[in-house]
Amino acid sequence: MTNISNTPKPPYYAVIFTSLRIPEDNGYGEMAERMIQLAQQQAGFLGIESARDDLGITVSYWSNLDAVKAWKMNSEHLVAQKKGRENWYSDFKVRISKVERDYGM
Amino acid sequence: MTNISNTPKPPYYAVIFTSLRIPEDNGYGEMAERMIQLAQQQAGFLGIESARDDLGITVSYWSNLDAVKAWKMNSEHLVAQKKGRENWYSDFKVRISKVERDYGM
Repeated sequence: MTNISNTPKPPYYAVIFTSLRIPEDNGYGEMAERMIQLAQQQAGFLGIESARDDLGITVSYWSNLDAVKAWKMNSEHLVAQKKGRENWYSDFKVRISKVERDYGM
Repeated sequence: MTNISNTPKPPYYAVIFTSLRIPEDNGYGEMAERMIQLAQQQAGFLGIESARDDLGITVSYWSNLDAVKAWKMNSEHLVAQKKGRENWYSDFKVRISKVERDYGM
């Protein structure tokens, strides 16, 4: 995702997912693509931004906390979360935050 | 910064800075390093995570909203913000958010 998300006026939610990968791909690339597609189909999805060099940071934006929870519990996403813990990440952190203010260029 | 920040128990603040760079460096790399050093000296600083490929995402963490505001108004940081608008970024967005919950590996 190479665009800055065109999110609405706050408040809305941001899920900040930071991760360190192990060197092997193990199907990661394909699953990451699929998760982005899947997230976009969820109710309350507002946008997603992602960058990786040594560290990976993906921020997804959601209209409210129920939308965040529904995405976490999506059945295909649950499978990906399990694979992430077992096969892809040496460390990760998820932070659920409420965007109170934003500004740009 | 290639580590996941060891932030305390929520609540705390996350400033999500997403940017698109123009191709020329124009002193950007040096200033980016300096801003990380400077942020770390600010009161209320909790950590910073950064990744860039096409998109750049830097998330800095702060103990409260006053610390976020003080960092924004830091005089050397104000100079960097001005240069960013003029010389480095084709687009950017800053989102100030309150982390309500987090979890990890």
